[in-house]
Amino acid sequence: MLRVMKSYREELTFETKTRRAYINITPQVDAALKKSGVKEGMVLVSAMHITAGVYVNDNESGLIEDIDKWLEELAPFRDDYQHHGTGETDGDSHLKALLIHHEVIVPITAGRLDFGPWQQIFYAEFDGQRDKRVIVKVMGE
Amino acid sequence: MLRVMKSYREELTFETKTRRAYINITPQVDAALKKSGVKEGMVLVSAMHITAGVYVNDNESGLIEDIDKWLEELAPFRDDYQHHGTGETDGDSHLKALLIHHEVIVPITAGRLDFGPWQQIFYAEFDGQRDKRVIVKVMGE
Amino acid sequence: MLRVMKSYREELTFETKTRRAYINITPQVDAALKKSGVKEGMVLVSAMHITAGVYVNDNESGLIEDIDKWLEELAPFRDDYQHHGTGETDGDSHLKALLIHHEVIVPITAGRLDFGPWQQIFYAEFDGQRDKRVIVKVMGE
Repeated sequence: MLRVMKSYREELTFETKTRRAYINITPQVDAALKKSGVKEGMVLVSAMHITAGVYVNDNESGLIEDIDKWLEELAPFRDDYQHHGTGETDGDSHLKALLIHHEVIVPITAGRLDFGPWQQIFYAEFDGQRDKRVIVKVMGE
Repeated sequence: MLRVMKSYREELTFETKTRRAYINITPQVDAALKKSGVKEGMVLVSAMHITAGVYVNDNESGLIEDIDKWLEELAPFRDDYQHHGTGETDGDSHLKALLIHHEVIVPITAGRLDFGPWQQIFYAEFDGQRDKRVIVKVMGE
Repeated sequence: MLRVMKSYREELTFETKTRRAYINITPQVDAALKKSGVKEGMVLVSAMHITAGVYVNDNESGLIEDIDKWLEELAPFRDDYQHHGTGETDGDSHLKALLIHHEVIVPITAGRLDFGPWQQIFYAEFDGQRDKRVIVKVMGE
């Protein structure tokens, strides 16, 4: 059997009510994978913004509070970032995005996200209350 | 010559004696690459757990001590994580895993891991003493 | 139409004048993508060193100063790293590289880097003033 490459692209959009928010997007990524028809390969899930990230971890509300508090400790909101010379006030959002990272790659095996039992994909918003996008790019055969 | 896609999957398993541990898994990833037969492409090496990570850096024992101490400073063990309301006590392990990141992608060229001279792949365990898994997914031609 | 895989590899080289430096390499990655002829796929951009990183964020000089200051706060230069027992003095460079991460994957759609409007790829040097390399590996069809 000849195995040929396929690729598939989809955008997810978010407008969060709060400035920071953590959204489990595993169902949307899974739905995109199904539409792609790819059985073996990888899916890239990547924020299209510089003040948002994507990470894989546990879907547990206490942990999500811990993550939020921890990111604020390590990359705090401050008035005096140099970046604010541009008129922006979101210097902390950029640093939080760098810390959590803006993309993940998930392996695809037998048409499914090849995850361990507790792994879920999260969109991490650090400067919300406006339209933001995440790209889902599936590649494989 | 027609170049067709190949993919290959393997799981590595670990049960570390200590709660935290750093294991050089480059030989295992290299062996999986050989078995895959892929000559040009990428290999994804990803923890299948939410309290473990995978990173690329130097195989130097002093540095590994520095990394461990540094992670404990930035994401310390504490009793009062919200996550502990679930009965768990590993809030710090999740944060350390987020900081180090759970996966890397390594380029494959001419059938080899296309690394610089000092780059080695490490499995970083943050909540061990039990069975844990890493997926190695090779994709290419 | 039969869609077959292509891959393409290129190295970028840097010798920065300062120990730490942040260089926008989006034009070089874009040029490599054009040469590859790949229309749909992914490009991996990865430091080949253990004291340098690659990240995606904004090309704004104030923000770059903020990032540099922030990395020095979280992974400071210190004399007493264990790693320095080897004769090296760059323990902080390794930790900064781990924090920022050594690689990114960028989706390719219709022959272009599929980015949001502000996303740019940066090479982050943490121990420069000597020859360093970044690999650009394009994979797709």
